[in-house]
Amino acid sequence: MTQFINAKEDLVTEALDGLLATSAGTLSRLDGYPHIKVICRADWDKSKVALISGGGSGHEPAHAEFVGEGVLTAAVCGEVFASPSVDAVLAGILAVTGEPGCLLIVKNYTGDRLNFGLAAERARALGHKVEMVVVADDVALPELPQARGLAGTLFVHKIAGAVAESGGNLDAVAEAAKSVISKCASIGMSLDTCTVPGSEKEDRIAEGHAELGLGIHGEAGVEQVVLANAKSAMAMVLDKLTPHMGQGPVVALLNNLGSTTPLEMSVLAKELMDSPLASNVEFIVGPSLLMTSLDMHGFSVSVMSVSDAEIQSLETPVNLSAWPGVQRRTSVRVDRLPDGLAPVEPIASDNPETRQTILSICDLLIDSESALNTLDAKSGDGDTGSTLATAARSLKGSIDKMPLADLTQLMPALGNELSQTMGGSSGVILAIFFNATGDACARGMPIQKALAEGLSRVCEVGGAELGDRTMVDALHPALDALSTDLSSAAKAARAGADATATITKAKAGRAAYVPGENLMGHNDPGAEAVALVFEGLASGS
Amino acid sequence: MTQFINAKEDLVTEALDGLLATSAGTLSRLDGYPHIKVICRADWDKSKVALISGGGSGHEPAHAEFVGEGVLTAAVCGEVFASPSVDAVLAGILAVTGEPGCLLIVKNYTGDRLNFGLAAERARALGHKVEMVVVADDVALPELPQARGLAGTLFVHKIAGAVAESGGNLDAVAEAAKSVISKCASIGMSLDTCTVPGSEKEDRIAEGHAELGLGIHGEAGVEQVVLANAKSAMAMVLDKLTPHMGQGPVVALLNNLGSTTPLEMSVLAKELMDSPLASNVEFIVGPSLLMTSLDMHGFSVSVMSVSDAEIQSLETPVNLSAWPGVQRRTSVRVDRLPDGLAPVEPIASDNPETRQTILSICDLLIDSESALNTLDAKSGDGDTGSTLATAARSLKGSIDKMPLADLTQLMPALGNELSQTMGGSSGVILAIFFNATGDACARGMPIQKALAEGLSRVCEVGGAELGDRTMVDALHPALDALSTDLSSAAKAARAGADATATITKAKAGRAAYVPGENLMGHNDPGAEAVALVFEGLASGS
Repeated sequence: MTQFINAKEDLVTEALDGLLATSAGTLSRLDGYPHIKVICRADWDKSKVALISGGGSGHEPAHAEFVGEGVLTAAVCGEVFASPSVDAVLAGILAVTGEPGCLLIVKNYTGDRLNFGLAAERARALGHKVEMVVVADDVALPELPQARGLAGTLFVHKIAGAVAESGGNLDAVAEAAKSVISKCASIGMSLDTCTVPGSEKEDRIAEGHAELGLGIHGEAGVEQVVLANAKSAMAMVLDKLTPHMGQGPVVALLNNLGSTTPLEMSVLAKELMDSPLASNVEFIVGPSLLMTSLDMHGFSVSVMSVSDAEIQSLETPVNLSAWPGVQRRTSVRVDRLPDGLAPVEPIASDNPETRQTILSICDLLIDSESALNTLDAKSGDGDTGSTLATAARSLKGSIDKMPLADLTQLMPALGNELSQTMGGSSGVILAIFFNATGDACARGMPIQKALAEGLSRVCEVGGAELGDRTMVDALHPALDALSTDLSSAAKAARAGADATATITKAKAGRAAYVPGENLMGHNDPGAEAVALVFEGLASGS
Repeated sequence: MTQFINAKEDLVTEALDGLLATSAGTLSRLDGYPHIKVICRADWDKSKVALISGGGSGHEPAHAEFVGEGVLTAAVCGEVFASPSVDAVLAGILAVTGEPGCLLIVKNYTGDRLNFGLAAERARALGHKVEMVVVADDVALPELPQARGLAGTLFVHKIAGAVAESGGNLDAVAEAAKSVISKCASIGMSLDTCTVPGSEKEDRIAEGHAELGLGIHGEAGVEQVVLANAKSAMAMVLDKLTPHMGQGPVVALLNNLGSTTPLEMSVLAKELMDSPLASNVEFIVGPSLLMTSLDMHGFSVSVMSVSDAEIQSLETPVNLSAWPGVQRRTSVRVDRLPDGLAPVEPIASDNPETRQTILSICDLLIDSESALNTLDAKSGDGDTGSTLATAARSLKGSIDKMPLADLTQLMPALGNELSQTMGGSSGVILAIFFNATGDACARGMPIQKALAEGLSRVCEVGGAELGDRTMVDALHPALDALSTDLSSAAKAARAGADATATITKAKAGRAAYVPGENLMGHNDPGAEAVALVFEGLASGS
């Protein structure tokens, strides 16, 4: 599978270099590439207990992106899904451990336990105070005593990190970590395996199925289940977790295992918060990418009952974009819809001249239906004539409800009528034109100027300019000439409409996608409609 | 394709409800589901200019997750990839716009322009001050004047948001937005299309290829290119962007389009920062999910030359986990490796009794090679005998270099020797055993107790307990009995080793994966080796 990497061998060191290059100097690394890949806080002075975590890569943002004040002091990174060496861990310990000592936070995998464990022994032999805790939060296999370490590790990082940052000694920091480990439980579910760089993706899970209780290294889940929907997915996960929730308030951490979309993660968050199984979940972390498994399309939930002190530690702000913070459950506020959404029904009034103009325009458009459709078929889907004729017929039917005596009222009323009866973008465009014209009338502009203002607003919103092969090419010159007389306007509209037949590169509207040679010699149907209307009005006057 | 959703029709409203449920009361929504989906700041008092953005969903965290103090006041959300209705936009405007007015930030898609545009007209007709800006940052098609709106929209949100939050009036906020729009440029590249919920994924891009210049709605890119690696991918993208970078310092935004792994994004970040085409990039936002296209495996880069005021606006902290902040380019600090990594070479010394014990143990293991291999073949890969014999032969060869007269020195020296010659987890386990034993010796413990302390540390690190069918089952009782005499220890070891033949459920080590019936009747090879050694030492003494 194609990926955005260079050589597979350089993937982790290059990714860490990318992290360093975008960390504004808050991180440093040890000069031990490629074997020793250790990321440290650049501002670390060894005056407090150091927190060191790590393990195989492929779980980003864990672990290197959690290095920072209040969380980890250093991350020791292995190759993808492979434990770092004893020397790499020892280098990390020696680089950041001062007199207060350090705590190693290890996920429960044999390689990590042994390599971190031996490094701890060697550091102790050199006189350092080193404690190690092992996170084993996976509840997928209740009978196996050696549960895997999953995203619950983040609780350990954050809570022990806060205790260390506040000056707690090594015993206090280790105790905080052990307390979290004793209480937290996690389980994952995925729709797909992950793509290990350089390997083919294993196609193990059938459409409509999911794996429940899987690890973060592509290992198979404990069971395959039929996945009905997000609600049942979350119910299955919570069902496994509820026996481990303990008493009192619970914090839940909703982790994106890789490629699950934010939309899906938010739906899962809703199902988590709505579930009767999660009624004592009072705090939530995420949904967020926290402990991933490369590009796995899955999620995990970690839960833990929390003391006041632990929730304070979780809530202590840290300046790390990978940490989404912890949110308290609150009721959701739903505000009522504002007034003013329903268009104000205008009070009908009459003006014979205005009525006659509108009816004439309507008849002109109805009479041109077929001709305009034919023209539109050259550059579009051949319905311009019908769209305009349908709207015109509808407007004729509602002419008696219009405020014909008041142009400031009439213009938006026409706009609202057209946006409801025409549909599509044409209706919205004409609605904008008439609403903006009405707005200009309301500000005292004479109608000719107001119409030009309306057109200008349409151009601004729709992005069309003169010469773009739209109705603007006829309407703009017509409105300009309207200050002289209607006959001039008609001539200007005709000239503008005819000129569109020579524009072979449409820049707006659907004709932009039609080859130029198909457009040559044919007027734009919108511009033609404008010309026909002005010509008709001029000849009738 | 299976996804973590419920009904497709409810996807967006449920996702928004999930966001609301995890936002700790900072967000509210309007009571207009399903047609009106508007997310607002819950703490908004209309005393400043409101910023409203939105558009089709499927671009999360844009736009709803950027609603918060200092960024957006409200987000109007359509269905996936579909513009929200005029009524929805109008509801958003009316809900949050006070006397200072509001700015609509719209991406350049016809539906969004028209619907936001008409809603603006209708809001103006109701007396509100409304301005609208259109973001068109895509440079994929230089000849099309209507460029698409891409992730550069985030620059507009953040910079205009900071100006509004600081009390700028509507003109100032709109001017800030327009200045950003005039300068920013974006382009995307992807290895795959996106999965639209309810639709099959289009398989358009061949292995080893990428699309350059694609939009955020699954529309095809301007060209398909051969993708050599991450470096050339970034070079192609930057090549399109450099003509738009302008003078002075540039900020780059590296956006994950969906399912690109954090590892890949970090490699791309490295290539961006390393590229000679980006030498004037002094600030970077991301890599992060900012303006996604569902689960698209791609990225986009947005660039903009920035004034001091603009960079200040970008840097103003906001309490939104979706905004990763802007980082200044700095040189990366590489710290030299700490001292102490190389094991201290012990000073050789002699003790005839200790020498004889070690040599005897080595010979016993060498003699047992074949028998232990046979036993291991029942539960493992049949190499326990060879592993131990190889290490024993090597240890015999280096016996003259050992500090035999000083147990405190000897124990870690043995551990280091074994970890180097045995390899694998066995070497690490024995290294931990001897290092921890030496640590206990250094603290003044007699050797028998120190050995027990070493074993206890191995159990702790390795996670093995008595009864887990490991060497612990022989070694633990043997060390207990050693305080009596060697003969008792040998008997205890033998009893422990023989008892492992009845343990059919191994809980640690490789045998944990072997069916119980295959283990029945066979001693664990590690425990057997311990028994053989103690028996040999006892009979020889």
